[in-house]
Amino acid sequence: MLNQQFSAQDSELLEQIMQARRDVRGNRFATRPVAQKLVDKVLQAASYAPSVGFSQPWEFVMVSNQSTKQAIAESFRTVNQSAQQQFGDTKQQLYQSLKLEGIMEAPINIAVFYRPSKLPVLGQSSMQETGKYSVVCAIQNMWLMARSLNLGIGWVSILEPQEVKQVLSAPEDAELVAYLCLGHVKEFLDKPELEELNWEKRKPLESCVFDESY
Amino acid sequence: MLNQQFSAQDSELLEQIMQARRDVRGNRFATRPVAQKLVDKVLQAASYAPSVGFSQPWEFVMVSNQSTKQAIAESFRTVNQSAQQQFGDTKQQLYQSLKLEGIMEAPINIAVFYRPSKLPVLGQSSMQETGKYSVVCAIQNMWLMARSLNLGIGWVSILEPQEVKQVLSAPEDAELVAYLCLGHVKEFLDKPELEELNWEKRKPLESCVFDESY
Repeated sequence: MLNQQFSAQDSELLEQIMQARRDVRGNRFATRPVAQKLVDKVLQAASYAPSVGFSQPWEFVMVSNQSTKQAIAESFRTVNQSAQQQFGDTKQQLYQSLKLEGIMEAPINIAVFYRPSKLPVLGQSSMQETGKYSVVCAIQNMWLMARSLNLGIGWVSILEPQEVKQVLSAPEDAELVAYLCLGHVKEFLDKPELEELNWEKRKPLESCVFDESY
Repeated sequence: MLNQQFSAQDSELLEQIMQARRDVRGNRFATRPVAQKLVDKVLQAASYAPSVGFSQPWEFVMVSNQSTKQAIAESFRTVNQSAQQQFGDTKQQLYQSLKLEGIMEAPINIAVFYRPSKLPVLGQSSMQETGKYSVVCAIQNMWLMARSLNLGIGWVSILEPQEVKQVLSAPEDAELVAYLCLGHVKEFLDKPELEELNWEKRKPLESCVFDESY
């Protein structure tokens, strides 16, 4: 059953899902609730991710309380205020016009943590960060699964991880990897917004691929 | 076109691809070459990944020279020798019986690097590691695309990143995120090998999900 052969059509569909996936923010989220069945499918997809030494080091805090979201949104505002100062005048103006999160708009927020194993993990000794990378693989699975269910996910990284941990009473050894917003959407954009606005250009693939060595 | 609605059937197919994806190693790889057209599809999938501030900070070194592979395999052997000492007697015996890489067997190896931007990146200021996480999202896209093309990928993390960088003449600021082996396979296992061998148990999803706070 699992040892199955996929067809060219299957592979094309996967490509379409990948191409149609967007980072969804702000008022592009629809506020109507997401059925638990759909949320479960998204979480299930995380569990299919690869993990170093089969350690499955992911933990998910599901947030829908308004007061919790407000505390997180407050942290976003503080960090965002100082983050925009890094950019020159023209970019700073564009930056201010961007809506970079959908914390309050999305019905569900998911804080994704890396919880390190207390025992040695096969494959992790010379590259410790592979534990966190396993959690990121799970996040990408969730993102693609959500898109195939016509749900949007936005990844909010303009946050102070220690503040998020405090708001969610996270144990000391838990490390925040991502803060995700999940919900139905009004629309999916054709292109990433930052590409559309020419904030950054798309890199030609050839510029990122090297033959045999750098 | 991209703003498309996917069907329940589409979402089920994606789930099947995720479930059938394996970490492929050793003699499960078939040595016959992989058509460039398929390699291109795998790399293209990487470029569809999300990236913090649309920074696309990924670089790929495609390795098929025997001598380069041999140098990497040598690094693996050294690290593997010391890595197994972490485990107790019973696990150490099992560890020794495992084939944990397919560097020589897979026709193509891909070293995946994070190349930090020299300019500030939107969304990265308070969580620097999101740059590397973007590269991991690209890797998971590659892994799923490969599986849908009936190709296997194995992620080798039992390596000393500095040695790999030296072998590939990587610039100082490039950070090794993953070393992947890519090829056709003789078979895909039904379950992760470490689950099958009871090295680690699969965690029930409920044990990883928290409601509102920890």
